[in-house]
Amino acid sequence: MQGQAQQQAYDRGITIFSPDGRLYQVEYAREAVKRGTASIGVRTPEGVVLAADKRSRSPLMEPTSVEKIHKADDHVGIASAGHVADARQLIDFARRQAQVNRLRYGEPIGIETLTKEVTDHIQQYTQVGGARPFGVALLIGGIENGTPRLYETDPSGTPYEWKAVSIGAERGDLQEYLEENYRDDLTLDEGIGLALRAIASTNEGQLESGGVDVATVTTETEAFVELTNDEIDEYIVENDLEPTDEDETDEPAE
Amino acid sequence: MQGQAQQQAYDRGITIFSPDGRLYQVEYAREAVKRGTASIGVRTPEGVVLAADKRSRSPLMEPTSVEKIHKADDHVGIASAGHVADARQLIDFARRQAQVNRLRYGEPIGIETLTKEVTDHIQQYTQVGGARPFGVALLIGGIENGTPRLYETDPSGTPYEWKAVSIGAERGDLQEYLEENYRDDLTLDEGIGLALRAIASTNEGQLESGGVDVATVTTETEAFVELTNDEIDEYIVENDLEPTDEDETDEPAE
Amino acid sequence: MQGQAQQQAYDRGITIFSPDGRLYQVEYAREAVKRGTASIGVRTPEGVVLAADKRSRSPLMEPTSVEKIHKADDHVGIASAGHVADARQLIDFARRQAQVNRLRYGEPIGIETLTKEVTDHIQQYTQVGGARPFGVALLIGGIENGTPRLYETDPSGTPYEWKAVSIGAERGDLQEYLEENYRDDLTLDEGIGLALRAIASTNEGQLESGGVDVATVTTETEAFVELTNDEIDEYIVENDLEPTDEDETDEPAE
Amino acid sequence: MQGQAQQQAYDRGITIFSPDGRLYQVEYAREAVKRGTASIGVRTPEGVVLAADKRSRSPLMEPTSVEKIHKADDHVGIASAGHVADARQLIDFARRQAQVNRLRYGEPIGIETLTKEVTDHIQQYTQVGGARPFGVALLIGGIENGTPRLYETDPSGTPYEWKAVSIGAERGDLQEYLEENYRDDLTLDEGIGLALRAIASTNEGQLESGGVDVATVTTETEAFVELTNDEIDEYIVENDLEPTDEDETDEPAE
Amino acid sequence: MQGQAQQQAYDRGITIFSPDGRLYQVEYAREAVKRGTASIGVRTPEGVVLAADKRSRSPLMEPTSVEKIHKADDHVGIASAGHVADARQLIDFARRQAQVNRLRYGEPIGIETLTKEVTDHIQQYTQVGGARPFGVALLIGGIENGTPRLYETDPSGTPYEWKAVSIGAERGDLQEYLEENYRDDLTLDEGIGLALRAIASTNEGQLESGGVDVATVTTETEAFVELTNDEIDEYIVENDLEPTDEDETDEPAE
Amino acid sequence: MQGQAQQQAYDRGITIFSPDGRLYQVEYAREAVKRGTASIGVRTPEGVVLAADKRSRSPLMEPTSVEKIHKADDHVGIASAGHVADARQLIDFARRQAQVNRLRYGEPIGIETLTKEVTDHIQQYTQVGGARPFGVALLIGGIENGTPRLYETDPSGTPYEWKAVSIGAERGDLQEYLEENYRDDLTLDEGIGLALRAIASTNEGQLESGGVDVATVTTETEAFVELTNDEIDEYIVENDLEPTDEDETDEPAE
Amino acid sequence: MQGQAQQQAYDRGITIFSPDGRLYQVEYAREAVKRGTASIGVRTPEGVVLAADKRSRSPLMEPTSVEKIHKADDHVGIASAGHVADARQLIDFARRQAQVNRLRYGEPIGIETLTKEVTDHIQQYTQVGGARPFGVALLIGGIENGTPRLYETDPSGTPYEWKAVSIGAERGDLQEYLEENYRDDLTLDEGIGLALRAIASTNEGQLESGGVDVATVTTETEAFVELTNDEIDEYIVENDLEPTDEDETDEPAE
Repeated sequence: MQGQAQQQAYDRGITIFSPDGRLYQVEYAREAVKRGTASIGVRTPEGVVLAADKRSRSPLMEPTSVEKIHKADDHVGIASAGHVADARQLIDFARRQAQVNRLRYGEPIGIETLTKEVTDHIQQYTQVGGARPFGVALLIGGIENGTPRLYETDPSGTPYEWKAVSIGAERGDLQEYLEENYRDDLTLDEGIGLALRAIASTNEGQLESGGVDVATVTTETEAFVELTNDEIDEYIVENDLEPTDEDETDEPAE
Repeated sequence: MQGQAQQQAYDRGITIFSPDGRLYQVEYAREAVKRGTASIGVRTPEGVVLAADKRSRSPLMEPTSVEKIHKADDHVGIASAGHVADARQLIDFARRQAQVNRLRYGEPIGIETLTKEVTDHIQQYTQVGGARPFGVALLIGGIENGTPRLYETDPSGTPYEWKAVSIGAERGDLQEYLEENYRDDLTLDEGIGLALRAIASTNEGQLESGGVDVATVTTETEAFVELTNDEIDEYIVENDLEPTDEDETDEPAE
Repeated sequence: MQGQAQQQAYDRGITIFSPDGRLYQVEYAREAVKRGTASIGVRTPEGVVLAADKRSRSPLMEPTSVEKIHKADDHVGIASAGHVADARQLIDFARRQAQVNRLRYGEPIGIETLTKEVTDHIQQYTQVGGARPFGVALLIGGIENGTPRLYETDPSGTPYEWKAVSIGAERGDLQEYLEENYRDDLTLDEGIGLALRAIASTNEGQLESGGVDVATVTTETEAFVELTNDEIDEYIVENDLEPTDEDETDEPAE
Repeated sequence: MQGQAQQQAYDRGITIFSPDGRLYQVEYAREAVKRGTASIGVRTPEGVVLAADKRSRSPLMEPTSVEKIHKADDHVGIASAGHVADARQLIDFARRQAQVNRLRYGEPIGIETLTKEVTDHIQQYTQVGGARPFGVALLIGGIENGTPRLYETDPSGTPYEWKAVSIGAERGDLQEYLEENYRDDLTLDEGIGLALRAIASTNEGQLESGGVDVATVTTETEAFVELTNDEIDEYIVENDLEPTDEDETDEPAE
Repeated sequence: MQGQAQQQAYDRGITIFSPDGRLYQVEYAREAVKRGTASIGVRTPEGVVLAADKRSRSPLMEPTSVEKIHKADDHVGIASAGHVADARQLIDFARRQAQVNRLRYGEPIGIETLTKEVTDHIQQYTQVGGARPFGVALLIGGIENGTPRLYETDPSGTPYEWKAVSIGAERGDLQEYLEENYRDDLTLDEGIGLALRAIASTNEGQLESGGVDVATVTTETEAFVELTNDEIDEYIVENDLEPTDEDETDEPAE
Repeated sequence: MQGQAQQQAYDRGITIFSPDGRLYQVEYAREAVKRGTASIGVRTPEGVVLAADKRSRSPLMEPTSVEKIHKADDHVGIASAGHVADARQLIDFARRQAQVNRLRYGEPIGIETLTKEVTDHIQQYTQVGGARPFGVALLIGGIENGTPRLYETDPSGTPYEWKAVSIGAERGDLQEYLEENYRDDLTLDEGIGLALRAIASTNEGQLESGGVDVATVTTETEAFVELTNDEIDEYIVENDLEPTDEDETDEPAE
Repeated sequence: MQGQAQQQAYDRGITIFSPDGRLYQVEYAREAVKRGTASIGVRTPEGVVLAADKRSRSPLMEPTSVEKIHKADDHVGIASAGHVADARQLIDFARRQAQVNRLRYGEPIGIETLTKEVTDHIQQYTQVGGARPFGVALLIGGIENGTPRLYETDPSGTPYEWKAVSIGAERGDLQEYLEENYRDDLTLDEGIGLALRAIASTNEGQLESGGVDVATVTTETEAFVELTNDEIDEYIVENDLEPTDEDETDEPAE
């Protein structure tokens, strides 16, 4: 209770430091990320895999409407977790940066460059008053000079590069799962399988058809491709993740 | 009481995150939506149906004055629930976007594009200081490339695509009603009937003449059409929703 | 007391949502409207009647100085209730909109259009920080395409269309009186009588000469006309509203 | 004490509504008006009289320095009560408006027009944040189309037209005195006498020489004229208001 | 204690009215004036005298550095009391106004005009948010059309004209001394003597050499002249104000 | 607890002084620096060494992604400790300053000049409202006119020049280690060794391969060079810092 | 404790007056000055001496990095005490003013003029909101028209001229020392000796080599000259201030 009162003192008005050097509004924004369903990125020598858990909230909602993976440019995909409306702002920002790069330099933007332009934008919202931080984390994956790259952005505006990473709900368990099962020499197919099995691991090892989005950018095509539901279902079967019992309907997290 | 004190800490000044990653002002704006009477959208292969409960507040008030369904462009209708004056702002915004699209590209704006321009606008009011969020939800329905589309916007600025959806008061019960009674192969007439029966379901199965607005955009005409009171009354009779007892006058919700 | 403390939390600084989705500053502005003496509008097939209770505050004050009914354009009148200085701002705004319409389109502004421009302006003051809402309600009456129209604006920026309506003090009783006595086929004279009798109904059935303003816009002339005191006195006599006892002097409400 | 705490909640930051629809900052500004010594206006068929109580604060202060009546234009005078520095701002504003009118239309500004420009200016300071209301009331008197006009402005920005009126300290008693003694057919001389006797009525029926300013605008000359001390002394003698005892020195009110 | 709490409520943020119509920040600024050592102005038919108590704070401080009397233009001097840095801002403002007047009209600025431009500037800091009031009072003295004029400005932005006046510490006693000893027919020399004796009256009738500044503007020269220390010492001797005991060193007031 | 309450009073809103003349927000930003892992700078006659502890957070995170040493210009490197996103802003700022210098003067920017441009930028964020201070310290090292220079910037915006210095976690112990082991005549190799041994001193004398970044700018090449992991491993072996036990995984500090 | 609460009320947000007319933020800024080590200025007929105590904080820190005396122009030096980063801002401001003066008038800026431009700049930060006051005092010394001048600026923006003065820590004792030992006819050498002995007086009469900076501007050269460490050491020996015991290492004050 006393600690609570202390915390409350730092979350009013603009984003400022607490006596122990923390930015509470940024940490609270990280909580907003945890409230979103998980997205997972896996980097393999053949390309980058983005997968997103989107357990539908209602049978009447179009599954495609819970978009969590977006094309940012021909060679870049972005998956998000957290506050959906904030994610859209950042993805639009990323798209504009990618377009500007093509116009100005006549070539696709580097994945690292793009990530850092996004994180610089995010950082501004943690330092300058008059706005709150972005309550969303992104996975930015693509091909840069023939090499697969996978980055994470967090609400503080820090960029991280990963081999495999999870953002959103149950990050602790998912990251542990990835650490145990990731290998540097995964094929793209194995990468997709790893991502799906990781998501399923938090759901009793099962995945509903249509309950997950998957996209890839391979070194071969250097093109962002979203898998169809049928393609995904094949991977579900292949990886033995078919649900045996569909009674469970999860509460939406946001 | 203690929880109450905690909440109060987050609703002053600008929209900021609470320690558990929530945006209270956005959640309170959702409460404003619930205070409004319900609007319902139903998508059928033949077109989109928008229906709005507008139980009149006084016999002297013009029923047409409680407008809850608006034409946004020839091929798009918008129904609202919540703070009426806020709804008007967003609908005007949507109209301008639709006009700009016609001027710039010489063609009608896509329903998804329009929805996302509206939700991006809404999102800004949840992140940048100096203004409160919009206390209104919208249903945006229309025809895009010959296909019926139905979207919802909420006060956080998130877009959702639906087969059938309810916003405003008693959303829980209404959504349950829709889930139980929706079929993918509804005719437009059946869609109108479903919407009316859903609204009636919260009023002892009865609908007053003039107590509901209905509009459609069909794939055939690609035109927003508001039903006349007489046309609506036919549907009321057809669906056996005539009031047997008119003593009840509801308190206005707003 | 506890509820009081809770309310106080929402009325500082800018206009924001309370946990139950209400905008307290807007509700308080509605209280400011109730503090003003009543204005009444009555729509008849022959034209619109605006009447305003302006019981004079002092024998030395010019009755004309307590203006509550104003000409907005040749064919539009506006009556107000609430904060007088705020009313003047909105009426000036309405006049400018009407003039702009004539300049731009060469024709009189529609009553509905004018009302919505005014309510959009009011809404801005309830959403954007740095100013308080307008503490005033307006009745906007006039002729549009040969048809009498009567609108109300409230401090939230919502427009309502009415057959007969009261704003300001004792709205509850007055609205009930109007509902009981209004008929769709009133003549203009009967409409004036109804408005005067309604105001008198809150004052023991009596009306002082000079204690009320009346204006009309008829379908015949499409012109805003203020009745002279003599003309009003005739209606007072005709409707048997002469005061029998003038001892009572009311406290000013504002 | 509890009521006090409640009031305090509304007087911080900008001018906002209290739960009962009041604007406390405006009401407090009215208190600032009451803290100033009285000014009185009397309208007679021959012209308008402005008189101001300016009991000198120190024998070393120049009486002319406590200016409370000012020429706004050839045909308009303004008397004030309340916060002196605020009064100067409004009087400068009024002068500029009068000059602009002469430049733009080649004719003297109407008294009603001038008053309303001033009250519109005052109103802005009660609605838009970042400044406090004006703590002053004005009497604006002059000749418009050959007719004497006398207006009051208050801190809310409401204009009132009067036959005779008092602003500032002891308004209640003074207004009562005016109501009892005013007649519509006063000569200008009688009007001056009434104003002086009213001021004297709050000072045991006595007026010091030099303790009051008087100015007139007559229909004959349509010119603002300040009376000399000798002229005022004649009226004091004529009206039998000479002090019998000068021991009393009043505390300055501001 | 309770009164204290009440006061505290009004001195945060911008300058606003208290429930009894006072502007606490302005009153607190007046306290800042009282914290400064006294300045005195005396108007005689031969010219205006400005004198300032500047008891030096340290033997190592240059007495000239505690400037309290400044030349504003050839014919105008300004003495100050209160917050020294604020005084410099206002004096710079006054100098610019005087220069602009010479440039624009080719003639020296009137003393009254100059004073009112300064007080209008001061007033703005008491009404518009984002800055505190000026914590300083000024005496503005000079010759206008051959006539000596002496004005005071206070932190509210009110101008006063005086025959003789004191600002700063012990104003009550000093003003009483001036009232008792001022005569309308003082020579300039007598005026200087009166000012010095008044200052000495608060210091056991003694004045240190170098502990006071004196300046004059006479009708003969219409020029601001600062007296040398030797000249001042002659007046000290002439008026029998030599210190008999120099042990006392006063604490600086600011 | 009481001291705590006192502190809380100074960390809301903008950066202001506490009664004892401290800037709490700046001190809290220094705490943010301490939360980051250490960076170390060592200046030798042969060149400047920058070393950064970057114990990896997860085996799946790319070690290169936890960048803590950056090239600011050909001849300047910058190491950081504290809030990573803030560091990126300042490093970008430094790069732009270095580029501008080359464009404007055709020569490399001086290390002292660059440092002071950065600290002036940092200072602004501690004085002007609307933003928080930077939560990061930098080490800026390079060659200026053939001489090695090593500067530190802190969150207050103060520049310090050092022979050897540590920023970030455990600064106290590390600085003590440097003071005990630094010699003015270190070779560059010895300087690298000193930096690595200092970092290892806080980790039981051990350094993981890949757990540290090292860069140098030598007087010979005047070029920023990052050591490869293999090169660093050689130094680890040379200095006998190989880990004997890798069980320990540190929690990330930020 | 109660007094403490009272103080806290005045140090939030912008700089405002306390009920007793004080500006707490300015007074707190003066505390920041006291937290810095002392600087001393001594004016002799031969020139101005500036000396600064800079007891080094660490053997690894470059003594030159703790700059406390700066050249502002050829003929002007500035010493500071207090918040180092704030000092740099003001010194940069002073340099720009000096340059502008040379460009505009082709001659060196006067010491008094320069001082007042600096204090006017400082004053703005104590009156206008949105920034805190400068937490630093300056000594500005130089030659103006062949005459040595020595000024102090404080955080309120007040300029003082001195024969000899101390700013920063232990001002009380140091000023007393200066008052006791200053003579108007000091040679420059004696002035340097006085400054060093004063600083030593607070350190048991001892001065470390390199623990003090000294600079002069003489009437002969009119040039700012910093003494070398060797030159300073000679003065230390000459004045018998060599440390007998170097065990003591002072904690840095800032």
